[in-house]
Amino acid sequence: MTLMKQILWLLGAPAFGALMPMPVTVVPGSGSLAIDSSFQVETRQYTDARLSRAIERLVLRVSRQTGIEIRGGKTVLTIECRGPGAEVPALGEDESYRMDVAPDGARIQAATVTGAMRGMETFAEWIEFGPQGFEARAVHIEDRPRFPWRGLMLDVARHWMPVAVVLRNLDAMSAVKLNVFHWHLSDDQGFRVESKKFPRLQGLGSDGHFYTQDEVRSVVEYARDRGIRVVPEFDIPGHATSWLVGYPELGSAPGPYQIERKWGVFEPTMDPSREDTYAFLDDFVGEMGKLFPDPCFHIGGDEVDATQWRQSAAIQAWAARNNLKGAHAIQGYFNRRLEKILAKHGKTMIGWDEVFDPALSRETVIQSWRGQASLADAARAGHRGVLSFGYYLDHLKPASFHYGVDPLGGAGSELEQEQQSRILGGEACMWSEYVDAETIDSRVWPSAAAIAERLWAPARVVDVESMYTRLGSVSRMLDWTGLQHRVNYEPMLERIAGGSAAGPLRVLADASEALGIEGRRDAGKYTSLVELNRFVDAVRPESESVRRLERSARTVAADPTAAADLQVTFVEWAENDARLKGSGELIELSKNLSVLGSIGLRALEYLRSGQAAPEGWIERQTAALNEIEKPMAEVRLAAVRPVRILIEGLARRRSNGGNK
Amino acid sequence: MTLMKQILWLLGAPAFGALMPMPVTVVPGSGSLAIDSSFQVETRQYTDARLSRAIERLVLRVSRQTGIEIRGGKTVLTIECRGPGAEVPALGEDESYRMDVAPDGARIQAATVTGAMRGMETFAEWIEFGPQGFEARAVHIEDRPRFPWRGLMLDVARHWMPVAVVLRNLDAMSAVKLNVFHWHLSDDQGFRVESKKFPRLQGLGSDGHFYTQDEVRSVVEYARDRGIRVVPEFDIPGHATSWLVGYPELGSAPGPYQIERKWGVFEPTMDPSREDTYAFLDDFVGEMGKLFPDPCFHIGGDEVDATQWRQSAAIQAWAARNNLKGAHAIQGYFNRRLEKILAKHGKTMIGWDEVFDPALSRETVIQSWRGQASLADAARAGHRGVLSFGYYLDHLKPASFHYGVDPLGGAGSELEQEQQSRILGGEACMWSEYVDAETIDSRVWPSAAAIAERLWAPARVVDVESMYTRLGSVSRMLDWTGLQHRVNYEPMLERIAGGSAAGPLRVLADASEALGIEGRRDAGKYTSLVELNRFVDAVRPESESVRRLERSARTVAADPTAAADLQVTFVEWAENDARLKGSGELIELSKNLSVLGSIGLRALEYLRSGQAAPEGWIERQTAALNEIEKPMAEVRLAAVRPVRILIEGLARRRSNGGNK
Repeated sequence: MTLMKQILWLLGAPAFGALMPMPVTVVPGSGSLAIDSSFQVETRQYTDARLSRAIERLVLRVSRQTGIEIRGGKTVLTIECRGPGAEVPALGEDESYRMDVAPDGARIQAATVTGAMRGMETFAEWIEFGPQGFEARAVHIEDRPRFPWRGLMLDVARHWMPVAVVLRNLDAMSAVKLNVFHWHLSDDQGFRVESKKFPRLQGLGSDGHFYTQDEVRSVVEYARDRGIRVVPEFDIPGHATSWLVGYPELGSAPGPYQIERKWGVFEPTMDPSREDTYAFLDDFVGEMGKLFPDPCFHIGGDEVDATQWRQSAAIQAWAARNNLKGAHAIQGYFNRRLEKILAKHGKTMIGWDEVFDPALSRETVIQSWRGQASLADAARAGHRGVLSFGYYLDHLKPASFHYGVDPLGGAGSELEQEQQSRILGGEACMWSEYVDAETIDSRVWPSAAAIAERLWAPARVVDVESMYTRLGSVSRMLDWTGLQHRVNYEPMLERIAGGSAAGPLRVLADASEALGIEGRRDAGKYTSLVELNRFVDAVRPESESVRRLERSARTVAADPTAAADLQVTFVEWAENDARLKGSGELIELSKNLSVLGSIGLRALEYLRSGQAAPEGWIERQTAALNEIEKPMAEVRLAAVRPVRILIEGLARRRSNGGNK
Repeated sequence: MTLMKQILWLLGAPAFGALMPMPVTVVPGSGSLAIDSSFQVETRQYTDARLSRAIERLVLRVSRQTGIEIRGGKTVLTIECRGPGAEVPALGEDESYRMDVAPDGARIQAATVTGAMRGMETFAEWIEFGPQGFEARAVHIEDRPRFPWRGLMLDVARHWMPVAVVLRNLDAMSAVKLNVFHWHLSDDQGFRVESKKFPRLQGLGSDGHFYTQDEVRSVVEYARDRGIRVVPEFDIPGHATSWLVGYPELGSAPGPYQIERKWGVFEPTMDPSREDTYAFLDDFVGEMGKLFPDPCFHIGGDEVDATQWRQSAAIQAWAARNNLKGAHAIQGYFNRRLEKILAKHGKTMIGWDEVFDPALSRETVIQSWRGQASLADAARAGHRGVLSFGYYLDHLKPASFHYGVDPLGGAGSELEQEQQSRILGGEACMWSEYVDAETIDSRVWPSAAAIAERLWAPARVVDVESMYTRLGSVSRMLDWTGLQHRVNYEPMLERIAGGSAAGPLRVLADASEALGIEGRRDAGKYTSLVELNRFVDAVRPESESVRRLERSARTVAADPTAAADLQVTFVEWAENDARLKGSGELIELSKNLSVLGSIGLRALEYLRSGQAAPEGWIERQTAALNEIEKPMAEVRLAAVRPVRILIEGLARRRSNGGNK
């Protein structure tokens, strides 16, 4: 098979059986392996309880995904694992595997249990619905990750996320081979872990919403079972209001402090001048260090507002004594002290861009929200780094946007090879100002799968169309891992529809895309007490159905006879406003969708008939589309895009001078 | 407010805020009570752990249903409970309650914790989305059940149902005030409970799919928490193959026996002639009687095939010695012995129609699958009875069919009052030949809610349109209890679509209705090993969207201008076959839907234009509809119904002689 044929074969694969992340090498074979109720997995060489549990999960997953009750009885898949690998998932562990599928059986070979698990996820994805039932096509795959740090950060401080949310996201992470769960555990709006040494942290800083130490241990264990590291973040010295509610003496101003309900950057900041602060942190890190086995300990360090430091005479005097000029120097001092405390407890510091300082040990890892240039600077100075710039999921950008960001792109591409090797990978980040337990999955997924591919697959894997085709498939498959990114969509719309049939509201929602934090922060008086149960919260960040229509519109501009699905959808849109009887914030949005439907139908008519549009029609419709495109009700009408493609097709035809 | 106004007000209520079962008395007040994040529940008078847990569940439910994160702080609902009621839910317990909602607060009064829980379910249903956000309208409700036995039977023998399936169905039961969970635990295809005395029962009779005793206890406790009795059924002496796999000596033929994989009635039957059989059952009932606290113990007793009895010389000789003539007499002897064993262990016998025999104690309860006449006979003979005839959910009949069956209807209406009082209620039954853990919820619900209303609400509540309006609403609300009757629909279709976009397949599925056991049993070579993951398994028993279209079609036949939703849907259907490219068993079905769409569009055209249809057109279309209506692929095309309404409208217009 030629390379071209291979690529076509991969792209043309039905949605299940589509791989994401794309493996390093995929060589198709001939024939396929039937997957039926006799499916059974056998291990050779090394095995242990962790591997057994992973196999149990695979069987359950295959059963859910196919609807087949697996009874076993025939060894269909053999796992050859050479050893346990790290006891706790470790940075740089061997995650490689080989997978061979032949008509008479499949085999996964790996050096570690983690590698075997990565292979099993590939196997599950590879199963597809063929003419003879479920099957895995014959194939030879060799695979290993490009970057060793492939993370997802969840902010559980701004909106509380119960354990179940964390667990189902860990399952989804493992399905797309992400291997670092970065747990943003404290912020101005909440302190989310039980401390037995300092019980007022969660006692007064959490509204009662925190993880007990037993729960933390169970999450860490759950992650370990899936080959995922857990890196806790306790954000200091800024973003620390919730600590100060119970321990105001840690603050740079006398207090009292209250849990923050608003979003933004706030003044409360730890007092870097008092030894008691460091003694407290020493005890605290000692306690938390035992709870979280990973050597990396994230201290945040971002967005410090220095107002309290400037206003405190004691802190100013102390800074002068220590020759610390300005806020950056003060934070640098604080971080160096913290670094020593962490080292004492066997921990490596990791922090956001702002912690970068020549005086820090080179061991410290820098996580960059500012950009590839910032990360490159850190790498040149000898630090290891992780990119999060471009991977901020709370902006609700299209998956293609995230997909286009490479940790070694931009300024990273100019680094020398050794410096490049310090770029460990990247992390998708979900800050939770505008998501809650009900909606977070639908904002993280499936986009995070595209980022997972960027971080795992070879740099050459960049085709956006292929990514979207496979992303749709992976998104559906994630349903079977228990993720709730899709199941809440209709019920939330029905809730908004007052429980009456949500059909027309769904049409409107399918045609819309929710805005991210940048579009929402000024749209209302948002605080942590404002409910996230409106239209914008149900609507998805990216409309898959509109993407399909765009593809059709591109075809139709060339071949107007192939317009069946556009025709159906435009009729639906045109009639939808009369059916929906939208109220409140949706009145205008709903009208606009029907206008779009009418414009689309008219455009189709011109394209089909070959008749020219009347003088000025194209210009007037383009102006209308520009108006309709402006966000309202905190969403944008994605439906504009396919209609625009048709109008542009008409305009092109006109400028080409012909009628056809 | 006049009675008429009250009724209109109730019917016009948005879907949340719709009550099912309908309470005995509903008196609207004025104003409404806001439900927001400050929602808090307080108890007065009696309280206990069971009530506290029920309140926690209510808060969680309100939170899910509204999307509001409940923080509490303001007493919105006060529960005044006068006492605990029965320690374990008991037949005839006082389940009544009163609910008062006023703009400044709500109150539920009840004599027992169970009554308070029934009131809390009404409260949750009563919350709706109003112009100012979520609210409960002012109202005074008095309510009590019409029948004390309102059950749901799940067959976990033919297809295995994991504990999670049982638990989520218990939650849904409690939401619609059903109070008896009848657990069909053994049948030819499986023995599903761990016996420590006779471990080969589950060891050899279950394929490893059985509930441990700890799991049984947790289910019983879970049900108790929701005011639900658990009545176990161990079906003997027929339907007993799974017992005999491990204990062939109990059988009437020497064996060996194997777990049955087919569906139907089979020969293996317990040996009624050996004392060892009764000694075994004595020990068995002793063990199970402790596990299940309810006094009722269901012994099945249905569909005994007497072949083995006839063929055994020993049994025939024994029967002659004991003057037992024929199978019915032999089974009567068996049941009388069993009744004594049950009594010894403090249990009351309940069995299907076939156990009815003048020689039995009047204590024995008869459950009728045969009909109201059979039940009336038992009541005349002094037995208490429960109706299941007409409530067999595995037939996938419309909810309106079940709704029309009354335990005191038919022959029951002719009983004297005292005899009528012996009719304890009814039970919806789900036999599991054609459902598995993935699909069972979608076949039980929402129909079981309509049956729940029949059994709880006053006999005068019979309006089918009102029932369907409220049923749609309750069905959506059940999403928030964790039931999976709706969430699996799209993923199952996507699985069948090979993971590609399921849009057109969903259009076809929405237009179809799955056949029940009667339509399926001869459609394929079904056994317990055949997967239930085809189109028919995803399709619902009753199409809500088609029901809406039927309503539109009725309007349109009178007012052709109001045809927007029909127009949109018919276009969608007409174009759907080209988009779906159906394969295999769906080719014809998909073509038929598109034909229906075209016929519908043409009919709309004639209705709208007032133009007469061409000569013979109506007749030809009617013939086409009759053809299309015939089941194929184990589903029927419900979409025929609204189109037929239009054609009939045209025919009527023609026979009225006018064009309009």
